[in-house]
Amino acid sequence: MKRSHHCGALTPAHIGETVTLNGWVQTRRDLGGVLFIDLRDRSGIVQVVFNPAYSGEALQIADRVRSEYVIAVTGKVVKRDEETVNKNLPTGEIEVQITEIEVLNAAKTPPFFIEDGVEVDESLRLKYRYLDLRRPEMFETLKLRSKASKVFRDYLDGEEFVEVETPILTKSSPEGARDYLVPSRVHEGEFFALPQSPQIYKQLLMVGGLERYYQIARCFRDEDLRADRQPEFTQVDIETSFLQQDDLLPMMEELMAKLLRETKGIELELPFQRITYADAMGKYGSDKPDLRFGMELVEMNDIVANSGVKVFASVIEKGGEVKVLNAKGCGTWSRKEIDDLGPFAARYGAKGLAWIQVKDGEFKGPIVKFFTPEEIEAVKERTGAEEGDLLLFSADTKKVVADVLGALRLKIGRQLGLIDDSKFKFAWVVDFPLLGYDEDAKRYVAEHHPFTRPKDEDVHLFDTDPGAIRAQAYDLVLNGYEVGGGSMRIYKRDVQEKMFAALGLSTEVANEKFGYLLEAFEYGTPPHGGIAFGLDRLVMLLAGRTNLRETIAFPKTASATDLLMNAPSEVDNSQLEQLHIRVARKPVAEKK
Amino acid sequence: MKRSHHCGALTPAHIGETVTLNGWVQTRRDLGGVLFIDLRDRSGIVQVVFNPAYSGEALQIADRVRSEYVIAVTGKVVKRDEETVNKNLPTGEIEVQITEIEVLNAAKTPPFFIEDGVEVDESLRLKYRYLDLRRPEMFETLKLRSKASKVFRDYLDGEEFVEVETPILTKSSPEGARDYLVPSRVHEGEFFALPQSPQIYKQLLMVGGLERYYQIARCFRDEDLRADRQPEFTQVDIETSFLQQDDLLPMMEELMAKLLRETKGIELELPFQRITYADAMGKYGSDKPDLRFGMELVEMNDIVANSGVKVFASVIEKGGEVKVLNAKGCGTWSRKEIDDLGPFAARYGAKGLAWIQVKDGEFKGPIVKFFTPEEIEAVKERTGAEEGDLLLFSADTKKVVADVLGALRLKIGRQLGLIDDSKFKFAWVVDFPLLGYDEDAKRYVAEHHPFTRPKDEDVHLFDTDPGAIRAQAYDLVLNGYEVGGGSMRIYKRDVQEKMFAALGLSTEVANEKFGYLLEAFEYGTPPHGGIAFGLDRLVMLLAGRTNLRETIAFPKTASATDLLMNAPSEVDNSQLEQLHIRVARKPVAEKK
Repeated sequence: MKRSHHCGALTPAHIGETVTLNGWVQTRRDLGGVLFIDLRDRSGIVQVVFNPAYSGEALQIADRVRSEYVIAVTGKVVKRDEETVNKNLPTGEIEVQITEIEVLNAAKTPPFFIEDGVEVDESLRLKYRYLDLRRPEMFETLKLRSKASKVFRDYLDGEEFVEVETPILTKSSPEGARDYLVPSRVHEGEFFALPQSPQIYKQLLMVGGLERYYQIARCFRDEDLRADRQPEFTQVDIETSFLQQDDLLPMMEELMAKLLRETKGIELELPFQRITYADAMGKYGSDKPDLRFGMELVEMNDIVANSGVKVFASVIEKGGEVKVLNAKGCGTWSRKEIDDLGPFAARYGAKGLAWIQVKDGEFKGPIVKFFTPEEIEAVKERTGAEEGDLLLFSADTKKVVADVLGALRLKIGRQLGLIDDSKFKFAWVVDFPLLGYDEDAKRYVAEHHPFTRPKDEDVHLFDTDPGAIRAQAYDLVLNGYEVGGGSMRIYKRDVQEKMFAALGLSTEVANEKFGYLLEAFEYGTPPHGGIAFGLDRLVMLLAGRTNLRETIAFPKTASATDLLMNAPSEVDNSQLEQLHIRVARKPVAEKK
Repeated sequence: MKRSHHCGALTPAHIGETVTLNGWVQTRRDLGGVLFIDLRDRSGIVQVVFNPAYSGEALQIADRVRSEYVIAVTGKVVKRDEETVNKNLPTGEIEVQITEIEVLNAAKTPPFFIEDGVEVDESLRLKYRYLDLRRPEMFETLKLRSKASKVFRDYLDGEEFVEVETPILTKSSPEGARDYLVPSRVHEGEFFALPQSPQIYKQLLMVGGLERYYQIARCFRDEDLRADRQPEFTQVDIETSFLQQDDLLPMMEELMAKLLRETKGIELELPFQRITYADAMGKYGSDKPDLRFGMELVEMNDIVANSGVKVFASVIEKGGEVKVLNAKGCGTWSRKEIDDLGPFAARYGAKGLAWIQVKDGEFKGPIVKFFTPEEIEAVKERTGAEEGDLLLFSADTKKVVADVLGALRLKIGRQLGLIDDSKFKFAWVVDFPLLGYDEDAKRYVAEHHPFTRPKDEDVHLFDTDPGAIRAQAYDLVLNGYEVGGGSMRIYKRDVQEKMFAALGLSTEVANEKFGYLLEAFEYGTPPHGGIAFGLDRLVMLLAGRTNLRETIAFPKTASATDLLMNAPSEVDNSQLEQLHIRVARKPVAEKK
């Protein structure tokens, strides 16, 4: 019984036709000897009817089927009676009068009902992922992901990018701490590593003259997982030669425009806003600001440096800063509502949270009395504080102030309904610092990665002030998430050596780890740069989900376990022997 | 100096235009103070000229560049003088008179010349792969591969297949002997395995109702490498629900037709020939016959069973067989030429190679005297032997006869020029046996894999004669290579259990290894089946190459080493400690 139509594709236009459907029994209802089955396939649901009047033996067979049985049926499409039309179903105006049925497979009662929006424990969903995937929203998300990949590929093919597969079995990198290692049967005591990204390979492809490369690449990172991380993830990896940042970014904007157009029917406004890292941190307290709403942070140092609020003055003296978030209209909040922000702010490092209400034309709150009238006036003017506003002060190191007020901005913006969830607001964050100082390690670390090209006009700072060097690096942010990031790369050996030296790598170590790259730079390496998009996260945002696992067919849990297959798992000792390794268990005492 | 054109794209239509080119110096020639540089980018080569008459300072700068320098130049496209036109170069009618140059990067003299067809040791090419990739034929092959992937995707997207990424970090399979294992930081003593194929995941996607899935998937196999194997390889992985073999195969033929049309401009004849496994082995001595030429093997058992050739009779008595290959026109070969076939045949297991020449109207050769005139006549008739033919006899087990004559057929067919290298001859090999008997292990093994569905009419043979069960399995062969293979899958628990039992898996072991799959079969699994194409090999054949490594950007050597990055390599003990493993070196005495 070969399928002639998909369930969800039937419309009144098919009335009178005999069709054969294949699918799963969603529900069955017996109404006085007439059997109604909602039949589901990936396209949707249609009602099929077994009636003694026309179904004959098929009715007896159908009587035995239950939810999730797989069946094939043949029958005639008819219009439903006016009063039985189901407005909730796209196929609700018709039904199929069945004359033949074949049970293709039986089904036990599933552990949860196959339907969108059912409340099911996620670990149960992951264990029975093959049932979870039958839910329409899961299929739609996978379809969206497939479509998104296709848009990426179509665009990049059109721009003459060549798709190249780079190795998964590769060399352990110098930040190898998070590498997955793979022992080798052939090479005793030696290991491959799974790539954290195809970074070096794509640069070598540019050395190899490919000029435009892309790959939808699997990447791996063995680290403690957070809700939005997976041990394996997918990035759309792109690299170009002979282009400058200002050539690449508009091209990537066109790509995003096509993506939104073809997956969401949304026309983006181009060009995207560009905001410097300094401005993003200053105005939004984040290097991935949600720009769907305003509520910018306001600098206060000059105004409050000499105020009577001691903590402000002392923070500023120590090189920290004071900033204000004007929570418009929250001046009417109760004392308790305001106090409840304290613990939230504390999670981001705040030691306290000072505030001022604008109420009855006046500034009110515990700290007001320490301000002079001139200071009050200056605060008012700078923050645009009006009747009914709530000013939230953070005073601490730059980082803590940004973290605290950035988080409060998002929380309150959400609470006030300032965030339009139907909007897709992209922006570039540019001019990242090249290096950050790691206080623990007492050395500079690469903010992006060690191959990022400094701005030409900043290269001389390697010798004097490495921390001030700006990178030719850029992140693409969308609604408060980083969805892409890249840079122009170093392509000259001497600059790369300066970079390694700034990172504290001795010449010997640099040569040992990256000798092949340094050598490659000497054989005619073109200027090059690129970007990588996080496909999982992009799809998550396009699908309106909040969890990366929803965008992945077979994700791992937060503890990096595959609940369906029960992986990782123990293996035979003989397997380990062949790989020249053995398990080195920690003594129980050392375990926590 | 932003590129306006690609080197290879310039034509007489551009004469008079000022263009900016970016690329690599292929060669430089100084002819009496005028400097000619062949400038190369991925599109091709164009001649650019520096002449004191118009180049000014650019000439001095250009004078310092050498092969593989990266430069940007600006100049005017002009027609070449008639006598200097280079017919070997697509851009040979024009040249560019340069007025500006910028050296983007210098280059040392490369270890080999960047040109097609140069004789370079492969290990040197692999060590400097980034230089090797600059050779036009390497770029063209990668471009072809990218194009082939796109054709696959476009076709499958058009047929409403959904592209789904399945995990790379997965569970060790029961044929785990060739699994790459990955220790886990989080799970002490437990291991992930890299997939040998996404087989189980794609079946679970069918259980999950996806109906049509594809993925261009990386697969891994840790085994002794042969010339045509890589530890990681790529397959186009396809699975469908509700289709029968006879629905799927024609669809895949359309896919191949599109592939050949869009990559080679070749129209394939559809449908493809289908040949049973038994016929393929019988007529061509191979389950992947090269069908670009005939030269079929001919059965002789009935004719020679009672002949005076003792070895024939005894082989037949022991259940073996005697077959003949008629090497048309080779009857004129010298005795030495014929004798030289012996060692070749021996490599395939032949203990000897009997032969008959048809010369001067007579059968000649050492064995002729043992035949009766009637037998000679029968041989003549059966083999179609004519004047000038050479009959090659193999008498042994079925397997050896097939191997020996199959190999001779290919060798002699090639030698006689019977193989048209411009032809792409696809065929399906069908009706594979489900199980083969492993004499060493004294048990049946799956010919395809344990999930292959037996033919419905053969299922009852599980109890009586498992070796006779035919599978719903098929291979796609092209010019003597297997380029794809697949099967309809088992989708009922009881059949899968019969299959596991036939393979000697106890219920306990089957449940432990495949419990999740057996369980999945109970929740409404649709009939499903699919195929996987070997992308590396297909691209190799499309590109007219004979080595898989030529189709892969960064391949590993035959000993599974990445010569460019020097992987695998030793890692820090601290890394191993975090992964809860240590290296277990074999005592030196045990090593060979």
